[in-house]
Formats: sequence, structure tokens, C-alpha cells
Amino acid sequence: MITVAEAHALLAGLVAPLEMEQVPLAEAHGRVLARDISAGRDQPPFAASSMDGYAIKAAEAELHAMFRVIGESAAGHRFSGALGAGQAVRIFTGAPVPEGADFVVIQENVSAKGDLITITDGPGVKSNIRPAGVDFRKGMTLAAPRLLRPADIALLAAMNHDRVPVTRRPKVALIATGDELVMPGERPGADQIIASNTFGLQAMLAEAGAQPRLLPVARDSYASLATAFDLAQGADLVITVGGASVGDHDLVGEVAAGLGMERAFYKVAMRPGKPLMAGRLAGAAMVGLPGNPVSAMVCGYLFILPMIRAMLGLGADLPALKQARLNAALERNGPREHYLRARVEADRVTAFENQDSSLLTVLSEANALLVRPADDGPRAAGEMVNYLPL
Amino acid sequence: MITVAEAHALLAGLVAPLEMEQVPLAEAHGRVLARDISAGRDQPPFAASSMDGYAIKAAEAELHAMFRVIGESAAGHRFSGALGAGQAVRIFTGAPVPEGADFVVIQENVSAKGDLITITDGPGVKSNIRPAGVDFRKGMTLAAPRLLRPADIALLAAMNHDRVPVTRRPKVALIATGDELVMPGERPGADQIIASNTFGLQAMLAEAGAQPRLLPVARDSYASLATAFDLAQGADLVITVGGASVGDHDLVGEVAAGLGMERAFYKVAMRPGKPLMAGRLAGAAMVGLPGNPVSAMVCGYLFILPMIRAMLGLGADLPALKQARLNAALERNGPREHYLRARVEADRVTAFENQDSSLLTVLSEANALLVRPADDGPRAAGEMVNYLPL
Repeated sequence: MITVAEAHALLAGLVAPLEMEQVPLAEAHGRVLARDISAGRDQPPFAASSMDGYAIKAAEAELHAMFRVIGESAAGHRFSGALGAGQAVRIFTGAPVPEGADFVVIQENVSAKGDLITITDGPGVKSNIRPAGVDFRKGMTLAAPRLLRPADIALLAAMNHDRVPVTRRPKVALIATGDELVMPGERPGADQIIASNTFGLQAMLAEAGAQPRLLPVARDSYASLATAFDLAQGADLVITVGGASVGDHDLVGEVAAGLGMERAFYKVAMRPGKPLMAGRLAGAAMVGLPGNPVSAMVCGYLFILPMIRAMLGLGADLPALKQARLNAALERNGPREHYLRARVEADRVTAFENQDSSLLTVLSEANALLVRPADDGPRAAGEMVNYLPL
Repeated sequence: MITVAEAHALLAGLVAPLEMEQVPLAEAHGRVLARDISAGRDQPPFAASSMDGYAIKAAEAELHAMFRVIGESAAGHRFSGALGAGQAVRIFTGAPVPEGADFVVIQENVSAKGDLITITDGPGVKSNIRPAGVDFRKGMTLAAPRLLRPADIALLAAMNHDRVPVTRRPKVALIATGDELVMPGERPGADQIIASNTFGLQAMLAEAGAQPRLLPVARDSYASLATAFDLAQGADLVITVGGASVGDHDLVGEVAAGLGMERAFYKVAMRPGKPLMAGRLAGAAMVGLPGNPVSAMVCGYLFILPMIRAMLGLGADLPALKQARLNAALERNGPREHYLRARVEADRVTAFENQDSSLLTVLSEANALLVRPADDGPRAAGEMVNYLPL
């Protein structure tokens, strides 16, 4: 048996960062910046007023001072002349500050009559001018890799990029296996259940930035599984669900080996979970997940998501642990790491009573996995424990 | 001046939950369940083995007991007969438990020879059987509204739903206004800057489950703005950025009023931010955001996202505050609520030094808004303060 950390490292070693592609800026959100990108210009490109008011010389900014207004500077329409002593230029937020001006007195501190203005309130010391380049200078770099969030998209726009170099999304083929499965919406026979794992995994993978693809259910036959692997061609990662155990009916490993997979088979010391199968097959990484719904989703979270992140260039770290206070005591843990379905509310964590790995209702109500190390001692209510947010 | 909470309530009052639509299960992730949905069957639909082993009678499950194996039950292929005294059925994980059996002895505790098996290790008291309906019963309900996460998608599949009733995505038209703006990728003139706010807002809105649409930049003219409002037809929410201030060049309010908007104009006591304009226009909600990049994004976060959530049926609550410890002292706050760009690392929060509302570089590095109430006293390093995660 290997630990979760060991299994995670072995699986992450099956993948590498994918190549770059260019996408339109409006589609770059949630993607991963693939190479450093730099600003083609200063922002702002000129000294700009941060207020509506009048541009004057700072040396003349005194209470009761009077000025003659000689023009106007609006956003997009600068005042083309230069400003002399005793002169002012009407100016609006974002507009270029005219040559010769180095102060903006805000309109609330001024009374205007015709083309004359008088400062009627102390103008203060703040110039109300944003220097050219105060946000960024030409050549300033946004460093890759970086998961692009809304503020990054705004920044890339301001830097004048309409296309963005991002890492290609990993293509993931999802194969549910088992004679007992029918697709949602079909009428199941008495012995049958609905394929659910691959739908949950598809959602999880899409959320993580992958491009998942659901293949038809593979039956428990060599031919059906071989067909499924064939349909998976072109994927960066092939995931089978079910059939990776040790029962007589677990053909997945046999078929994958027959197709040339260098097979690794890990017994991972964790609950929920079962042996994981993994290797590389025809240019793709391949992972066989257990078929119990909760095991499949938890293994997807712990092992598959880091592989996706590694392919996106974000590194393959396990998700970061958080801490909360136990709401109720826990008995001593056994020899396997345990990922208990739990709810965290207001920094207190409560494990669900029934931890059977078939219970999707419990997983659906959970918002965290309470993480217990192997052989963790009994824990009293109020103790701090680790969890992973879901 | 009104408070952030008052402005938020006024804006939320401009919208209502949208209608329902049916989407395929594979596209339901991230959508909001619009009405309660119930299971059409029990899960599992039959008592099922949770292990690979042999189904027997619990009363006979004793060390050294021998059984004759009379058949096999695999997932999808039940054993059709009934099991008598001294008999066993080979059974695999997930397979129906045969009639007459109420215990599964795991294969590791058995030695098999031909069609005879002997229990070689204490079989324990755990039956290794999942009763029919242990996950859910026919009629069990998933309650709306509910943002559908991956585990919910798996659960809906197991309930046998291939289509899901969800709230329609809010259609949002985004209008950047200003003679100074060009689109990313264009060559700006000396007085011009790149439109960035609407790109950042588009990403923010898409992330929140809306369907944003970028309209062409509207110029500072009545005709151009009227055209933009015309192009926005069909949207549930129209957002303008810039031009909602009080300067001579702020035409947005004038044009919207001319088109029949019942206008509300709020001075919100907050930083960053400026007056917000809002109302209803031709069947849509309309909000005018300030044009400073950081103001637009922060107001989007505080005011627009709750409107999106309200339209999705999730309620219009402000995002929930979290707490962290101040890394460095803060001076007394002024009379307006302040949303400082900040970084939270390991439960300590640090406000950026330069809080100018034009700095996209600072917003892009921030992962939180440190929230200071109006007139909040000086705060020492180590004190707990509120923040909103970004």
C-alpha cells in the first residue's frame, strides 16, 4: 500500500504541461496564461485628472485666487494649448492635464462666472492628478503561469491585448464501465442503475478548466472496452470508472494492458477509495477510478484535479488544507487516511454520520472533506482538524 | 448620501427571479435548480453487495463453515434463483444480493476449491450489504433553489434525470462609454485609452452565471448612447460604465431619461466608487457604474453580482464577510465605507499602500477587499478586521 501523497506524485508524473494557444481576450477568463505578457504602453498614457474641476498651476492654488478659463480638456479631447499664469482649463475626470498645469482644483471648491473662476474653499495639497504610467509602464509584465481572473482580464485589456497566450485545455475522455449501467433518462432494467460518476466527474473537470468528453458506457467485455479506448483517441487523459478492482469481472486493466499500457497498479491507503490503476497508453495518461460514486468523486478531487492543474502549467500540488474546529468527538482512525464527508459552517466542521462510499446524497450535502491521517488518535470536540473545501 | 447596504437593497429591488428552462444534464453544472426535483426510483434499487465475496445466510456465517457455490451474481446480472441452507452465491461489488441471502463474506476470508468454499477467517458482524434505497428513496427531493455543483450533477444522474429545470441565465448588456476609449488591439490616439472595464465585468458576470454581451463603445454623444441602448434590447440588465458622474460630459443619465428611464441616482458613501445611477428602462434594469477601473469592478462585485444572484433565484445578499488579522496598523477611516484592495495570506490581511481607484495592477494582485466601516477608528496590527474574498 502507498500513501495518498505517494499516489498523487506517481499520477502527477504521468502528465506534463500542454502547449500554448492564442484565444480572444473575451474568452481568456478562467484560462491559464502560458507565457509572460507585457504592456505595449504606459497607463495612463498621459498625466490625467482624477476629478472634475479646473487645471491650474499649483503655485497659484490659493483660497480667493482668480483665473481666466481659456479652454477645456475632456476625456478623449485634450486642450491643445499651454496654460500661462492666472489661467485655468476646465477639465474632466480622466482627461489629459494641459501643458503648464500641475494642479486640479475640484469644481466644488470653485465659483464660476462667465470665463472667470474664483477658488472659494481651501484647495488642499492633493494635486488630483494621476501621473503618466502610475498604473503601469510600457514593458511591465504579467508573469505566467497565472490563472486569469476578472481583474486580470481588465488589466490585459488596458495593456492593449486582444489575444492572449494560454495553455490549451486538457482533453479528458470519460469512460463509465459496467453491464449494470444505463444512461440518465433511459429505463433501467431490474438489475441496472444509472451511470452517474462520469457526469459528476465531467462537471468537476470542466470547473477545473479541462475539456471533458463523455464516451458511451463500456460493457464488461473485452470488445466493448477496446472500442471505448479506441473512441478515446486524441484525449490527453483517459479516465475509466469502475472495473479497476480485483474481482473476476474487472477487465479494464486486462484490456488496457492488451492495448500496450505500461500499467501501474496502486493500492492507496485511503478511505474512501480502492486500488487505482494508472499508466500511459498511446500517448495519453490513463487512470482507472473506483466505481463507488463517492470514491470516484473523492479520487477525482485528490488525484485527477492535480493532473489537470499540472497539464495547465499550474503545478500538481494537492489542494491546500484548511483548518476548522471539530463539532463532535471522533474515534481513533484506522491505518488508512480517511477523507470524511463533512460540513463546515462558521469555522466548525461536522462529519456526516454515514460515511458509506455509495451515498451521493451525503456527498451532495457535504462542502468539505475532513482529512484524518492514518492512525490519527481519538479527537475531542473543539480540537482543530484539517479539511479540504469541496 | 446612502450607505452601501441601502444602495444594495435599492438595486436588488430592480430585479426579480427569471423564468425556468430545461437543460441537458451535461450542461446543468453551475446552473441554479429552478424547482424541486425528485427521484424516480430507489438507489440502490435492490440490496447490493458492497464487496467482492460470497452471499450466504448470516445465521451460517461462522469460522470454518463450508458452503456449496450454486451460482454467481454480478453487477447487471443477478442470480435468479433463491439460496438455501449451506449454499453460497459468488457475488461482486454492486451486484444484487440473491433471495435468501443476508450476508456477504468477503473473498479474502474464504478458501475456494471447485464449487466448495470454507470460511477461513472470522467473518465479522458487518453484513457488507447495502439495503435498497440506502442512498435515496423514490420521491426523495433535491430542493430548489440550489446552485448545482459536481456532486449534485452525479446525484441528479443517479436519480435518472437527463434534463434539469434551471433558472434562465440573466442576459446582461455591457456598454462602455467615452470618446477616449478604443477597443483592445486597436491603435489608440494620443488622448485615448483602451476599454478595459467592460472586459473585466464580462468575466466577472460570466463567472457568476450570467450571459454577458459586450456592445460597441458608445461615444459621448446623444446619438451614440441612444444607439447603444437600442442595441441592448432584449437584455435583463443594461450596465453602462463611465459617464454616470456629474461633469458636463456625463450624458448617460440624460439619454436614459430621454428614453423613459425612471431614474434613481444614488450617492453612495463608499470608496472606491462614485454616484451610481440606476432604474428600469424598457423592461430591463439599468445601472450606470463609475468609469474608474477599480471603482467599476468593486461596484460590480458589491452591487451587480447580488442582482445576478437575485435574478437566478439565489437571493440578493451581499457577499459574506470573512475575518483576518491585520498585518499592519491602519489610520482612522473617513466618513465613507472603504473597500481597500488587499491580500490575505495564511489568515493575515495586508492592504496595498496605493489605493488609487485607477490602479488595475493593484486590483489584479489583490485577492480580497478589506472592509472598513465609516468612521472606523484606528486599527492596530493584529486586530481582527472584515474582508471580502475576491
